[in-house]
Amino acid sequence: MKQIIFITSNKHKVREANKIGKSFGVEFKQKFFSYPEIRADSVNDVAKEGAKYCYEKLRKALIVEDSGLFINALNKFPGTYSKFVLGKIGLDGILRLMQNKKDRTAFFVSSVGFADKNQIKTFNGVVKGKIAKKIRGSCGFGYDPVFIPNGFRKTYGEDDKIKNKTSHRFKSITKFCKWYHKYS
Amino acid sequence: MKQIIFITSNKHKVREANKIGKSFGVEFKQKFFSYPEIRADSVNDVAKEGAKYCYEKLRKALIVEDSGLFINALNKFPGTYSKFVLGKIGLDGILRLMQNKKDRTAFFVSSVGFADKNQIKTFNGVVKGKIAKKIRGSCGFGYDPVFIPNGFRKTYGEDDKIKNKTSHRFKSITKFCKWYHKYS
Repeated sequence: MKQIIFITSNKHKVREANKIGKSFGVEFKQKFFSYPEIRADSVNDVAKEGAKYCYEKLRKALIVEDSGLFINALNKFPGTYSKFVLGKIGLDGILRLMQNKKDRTAFFVSSVGFADKNQIKTFNGVVKGKIAKKIRGSCGFGYDPVFIPNGFRKTYGEDDKIKNKTSHRFKSITKFCKWYHKYS
Repeated sequence: MKQIIFITSNKHKVREANKIGKSFGVEFKQKFFSYPEIRADSVNDVAKEGAKYCYEKLRKALIVEDSGLFINALNKFPGTYSKFVLGKIGLDGILRLMQNKKDRTAFFVSSVGFADKNQIKTFNGVVKGKIAKKIRGSCGFGYDPVFIPNGFRKTYGEDDKIKNKTSHRFKSITKFCKWYHKYS
């Protein structure tokens, strides 16, 4: 097993990552470390700057992960501010903003930022879907109970098996693992 | 007239500031310069870091200003993300989030961040009020058409004279001018 530090305060993310990492022989070790998140339109930039900052302080190979939900009818809101917005207005607020919107399409983006003494690198994953009309299910975290991935009828909140195989984070972490298990 | 550089892309802010500065003999000169805004819960921190960053790059005495609308029923949303949120969901989105909310109280906060070779200093202003039930008026900018300051019945959008004498930015800029016109 090849280990890597995962800087996050979110244990759900680490659990998700370790389910994926297993088949690549990659193990994620959670570490709490506070870093400034820049204001940017792309999660890729947030992850890149976050990884860079953490490496400069800790001087150990590590990853950070940033993700966001981008709703087309809301001009890509809440985007890179997804966590902040959810904490303030909740899923109820999102559904309220989506009342009577015909276009319910949205996408999640995840970006893994890796940094060590040699380089800074990002790995991105996207999943497209739509916003449900009400909160459905209680699996997962964040926006999962209102997100229905394309090709499915259930939200991520109703079926975390679907999430674990299709999600933005599944894709970004998989890309990272494929690269990292060969990297030395 | 004593001049000071005002780093902002918003000409409305500079116009507001100059109306106030006149009686103190302070003139604000707009300068466009892009600086990273940190993610923080207080506009004071955003203004402080912004002023510091700009001074380090430009090496001239300057101010930046950050402001936000904090709505109590929405857990202080949109707060330091006010500009971003307005650009995404608009005033309609804010009113939608406030549908059926009994508590419509809110407050604006403005923070002026000053930096020169000697120091970094902030000047804060707050105005309390409530969120109107619909968009009223077209004066001012930002959230002005939905904000009714305490003691008045009109929104800032309906009466910019009230705004110019009571607003958060009126207060922060006034504090700055009082201090700056004596400072050398």
